[in-house]
Amino acid sequence: MATSAYELAQRQGDDAIRTSLLDAASRLLAAEGPGALALRRIAAEVGCSTTVLYRMFEGKAALIEALYVEAFDRFRRRLESVRKQSDPLAYLADLGRAYREHALAERNYYRLMFGEPIPGFQPSDEALVRAAATFTILEDAIKDCADAGLLSGGSPRHVAASLWAAIHGVVSLEMAGHLPRDNGEVFEATLLAMGKGLFTIPSTGEKRGP
Amino acid sequence: MATSAYELAQRQGDDAIRTSLLDAASRLLAAEGPGALALRRIAAEVGCSTTVLYRMFEGKAALIEALYVEAFDRFRRRLESVRKQSDPLAYLADLGRAYREHALAERNYYRLMFGEPIPGFQPSDEALVRAAATFTILEDAIKDCADAGLLSGGSPRHVAASLWAAIHGVVSLEMAGHLPRDNGEVFEATLLAMGKGLFTIPSTGEKRGP
Repeated sequence: MATSAYELAQRQGDDAIRTSLLDAASRLLAAEGPGALALRRIAAEVGCSTTVLYRMFEGKAALIEALYVEAFDRFRRRLESVRKQSDPLAYLADLGRAYREHALAERNYYRLMFGEPIPGFQPSDEALVRAAATFTILEDAIKDCADAGLLSGGSPRHVAASLWAAIHGVVSLEMAGHLPRDNGEVFEATLLAMGKGLFTIPSTGEKRGP
Repeated sequence: MATSAYELAQRQGDDAIRTSLLDAASRLLAAEGPGALALRRIAAEVGCSTTVLYRMFEGKAALIEALYVEAFDRFRRRLESVRKQSDPLAYLADLGRAYREHALAERNYYRLMFGEPIPGFQPSDEALVRAAATFTILEDAIKDCADAGLLSGGSPRHVAASLWAAIHGVVSLEMAGHLPRDNGEVFEATLLAMGKGLFTIPSTGEKRGP
């Protein structure tokens, strides 16, 4: 039987409520730590009853799992939106910039993905697969560089880990307010240094015009 | 008047109690967040009365300030213990390794220094000076590289920020358990990549041996 207009509207409404609940939970988590993740409190933030919240998430563990999956899905969509270029190094640099922009725009979700884990939380295998999908985007971009003969050494997986770590380092110091100024400049300098250190960058002379 | 043996013993005892109180506070902070930093609770952890705690720290704000200063003092002492070498790049790499070792050995204090700040905590000017002293060690090591003509470009201050960020990135991903394996290998690869990207590394042929 076809889905009725009423059911569709209800489903869209549910999606919007679900997103509001997840956003409220991630704000509470970032501001006050895991102790603040009480379902009653999250419902109050959004202005719905705990019944609605329990209808969407079985309990606190399911809510944290949903938060984790939501964080990685948003991150993956952002990275996937970066346009591929014929120059694989230029594409890689754009991926790095998209990473930073996303992290700064979604700080709470970013901390949930790559910050200290919530005590006792172990993502399900399915959630871990979705998390790994974001790393694969970076790893694939580095494989393209390797195929173009641009990788100086190391396996694409290890190179991806190093590059990720360096980018995460600038972004997390910036988010925590430890880089006093010129954050963008420090980010670009780090990206460039890692680029020079990991890849054989063709000299300008080799570039074809115009 | 000379300090009596009794006074000396009392002072040493006070120092030991103070260190125990700070270590307990940093453990609580890491495990449960700023909400756990109640003076009564810290005193209970160490097994002393809150009177002793209030004698040493005026209140919670003073305790957090003391924690912050203690973290940076320990970190500075560790970095200062790294032996200078005639090769400024080798010394710089050793500083990086000491940074990682210290962070992993003193995780709670590390988070306090370079993680997300405690809400509402603003270090005093004196504490900030002591924090900056650790950055100066790194910046001075890079100035030595610049003096030896090894710096590819950028000011020592900016280069120090980039290198710090990359090292912090590997260390914090490692501490949070996000690097699945080969942590040491990822660290060395990142250090090498940043070294190649930021400095003019003399080719092996130029080395005088042995």
